[in-house]
Amino acid sequence: MERSVTFFGLETINRVSFLRDDEVFIKQAFEHGSTQFVPFINGAAFATETSDKSGTNLLMLGHQGCPNYSEWPGLLNKIRSVMDTERGWLVESGFTITFLGLMDGDSSFSYKEYTGTPLFAMDLRPASDTLVQKSETKFILDQYEPLGRMQAFNLSNEVASLFSHANMYLDWLRKFLFCPGCASKVFPVHGGTKLQCGNNDESVKCSVRDAAVSNVCFPRTDPVVIVAIVDRCFSKICLARSRRKHGNAVMYSTIAGFMEPAETVEHACQREIWEETGIKVELNDVDILFTQPWPYPCNLMIGCLGLIDFNGDNEIINLEHDKELLDAQWFEMELVSQAFERYGKAPKGLVNFDDRITFPGDTAIAHQLIEHAVIKYKRFNGHL
Amino acid sequence: MERSVTFFGLETINRVSFLRDDEVFIKQAFEHGSTQFVPFINGAAFATETSDKSGTNLLMLGHQGCPNYSEWPGLLNKIRSVMDTERGWLVESGFTITFLGLMDGDSSFSYKEYTGTPLFAMDLRPASDTLVQKSETKFILDQYEPLGRMQAFNLSNEVASLFSHANMYLDWLRKFLFCPGCASKVFPVHGGTKLQCGNNDESVKCSVRDAAVSNVCFPRTDPVVIVAIVDRCFSKICLARSRRKHGNAVMYSTIAGFMEPAETVEHACQREIWEETGIKVELNDVDILFTQPWPYPCNLMIGCLGLIDFNGDNEIINLEHDKELLDAQWFEMELVSQAFERYGKAPKGLVNFDDRITFPGDTAIAHQLIEHAVIKYKRFNGHL
Repeated sequence: MERSVTFFGLETINRVSFLRDDEVFIKQAFEHGSTQFVPFINGAAFATETSDKSGTNLLMLGHQGCPNYSEWPGLLNKIRSVMDTERGWLVESGFTITFLGLMDGDSSFSYKEYTGTPLFAMDLRPASDTLVQKSETKFILDQYEPLGRMQAFNLSNEVASLFSHANMYLDWLRKFLFCPGCASKVFPVHGGTKLQCGNNDESVKCSVRDAAVSNVCFPRTDPVVIVAIVDRCFSKICLARSRRKHGNAVMYSTIAGFMEPAETVEHACQREIWEETGIKVELNDVDILFTQPWPYPCNLMIGCLGLIDFNGDNEIINLEHDKELLDAQWFEMELVSQAFERYGKAPKGLVNFDDRITFPGDTAIAHQLIEHAVIKYKRFNGHL
Repeated sequence: MERSVTFFGLETINRVSFLRDDEVFIKQAFEHGSTQFVPFINGAAFATETSDKSGTNLLMLGHQGCPNYSEWPGLLNKIRSVMDTERGWLVESGFTITFLGLMDGDSSFSYKEYTGTPLFAMDLRPASDTLVQKSETKFILDQYEPLGRMQAFNLSNEVASLFSHANMYLDWLRKFLFCPGCASKVFPVHGGTKLQCGNNDESVKCSVRDAAVSNVCFPRTDPVVIVAIVDRCFSKICLARSRRKHGNAVMYSTIAGFMEPAETVEHACQREIWEETGIKVELNDVDILFTQPWPYPCNLMIGCLGLIDFNGDNEIINLEHDKELLDAQWFEMELVSQAFERYGKAPKGLVNFDDRITFPGDTAIAHQLIEHAVIKYKRFNGHL
């Protein structure tokens, strides 16, 4: 795996973000014959089989939809008629939709110098009194299975990344129904990539509506630091035990935690390491390696390495600050390295350390951080 | 300047984040004689002079307040009486308050094994009908000047970082008055570090209140990528012109832009570089170097380096995609390096390239990114 390409992180579409507020573009992109829609219902995407039957794919529908699709063209028309207007408010419309970008492929759609297949994702949430009716979504539910959380990890990285992109926007559009500044309804604009405060009463002040630019109107991304703690010679790595169980085995993984406002990534690593394990790392000993989008619901995992100078104090594990972890321990890199070598030859899944302990599998950035330490260990010891 | 310590990024307090939901701790921390409060009024902090008259400091008040402080102890009592309860809702209370952490110094306050001076920041926004009255804030306005935006850059890095920490939390508490899920009022809990949906009507569904954990209840941090674009041999750097003017000079700086949901940092750099300059960088040629918190209002600047292979195409500047920039051009590193050498000897401020062009000064992460490129250039050319 290339350094930068973590799972969910292989973006292959051009977001053409600067065209989102161009109504002519959005209209043409929506209506083009090649356009593809990724449907979600009540927050769940749908699975199909890949064309070569090798695995799971994500359901995408064109304007022609799928077999027994008679409701589909009418549904698209309804959506198109209120999209990016006040009537597109989820509570009344029963849907949200967002423009993802242009995907390489069919070049029959072009706008200015930009070509590609237009891609939209939509979440259908019909209720008894919404514009979109339950009966109109039945043809999808009748023919496809919802994509389960673990199933998303069976998608190809390219498709999983597209799912991640859709899920992050749709989760945001679902959660933000009312303006945090004035409690008015908020409705999506710019192809479902920005929210607009619907407060038309000028006598009611609203810090969101009245701001020249308000970050509240855009989707949020929560940065998380995730850090492999190793001694400076790469002979030991500190991994911690989560509550997750797999048969009789438990999983040991890297430390992670949400960044707080006004922290650097380096300081957030130092703080999380100390809070969760008691281990002390210097700010200058934190390196930022690579990152991963994580769509549960809208995280940015920032993968780091923290180098520890063992001095009889820095490395002492103390779980009593935050009390979040069940256990943490220093593992010999020699043994971790052997486990990763066995994993390279085995069917994928978790990495087995021994009968009782596993490490994360290769869709997790934690896996790549540990693997990074393994490679460094081998270099230090002349094996590479 | 140490690699990791960007301006606003020198955090020196222990946030003891795991104690925030401990009501006994918050009460004791608030009431202790050594406790310090950073007051803001309507979003502005206040300036004082440093003890050695060398510059600007941030106003902090103890329980004893300042000269003519007779309203202060009563005000603190009012705040204490409704803090972390529904009655602490800004619209009715006229204030928000947040616990920042324990600062090294006076060790007379201790809780479990944690010692230090407790630090709170508060934003007073009295209206005619709020618990906090305008008359109670007058003693601050009468004696101190609000800290202007540019003045914050005159603070020591340690104090500026504390200001940044306070400002990010207070900005969030000010903006989020209503629940985005159900339009009920939201009020701060856990020492003003979490928001609670005040919807008590169980018949009204609320995706925020009913979630086991909801990221909506925590402050947001917006990640921004900021990237120096250099050719692989560090002989040229691409800098772009902002709208900012200083006398007759204009400033050329690095490219920056908000990250979007479901992007890696590496991909966001690739996208922003292409959107703003037309230049093409490979994902594997993006390195993440260091980061900076930016309190206007709650950004995380992620400083990167993008290496370009000149091939007659990659390096061609095209400003026509996003049309955000006035100009971008490739500068010879030889000349940039000379400007940085002159800057090292000059009074600080912006870096003068020539009579018409400046580069960012050393409180900006852009400065450090360009300086990083200068150092690499010198190494490549045997000057270091």
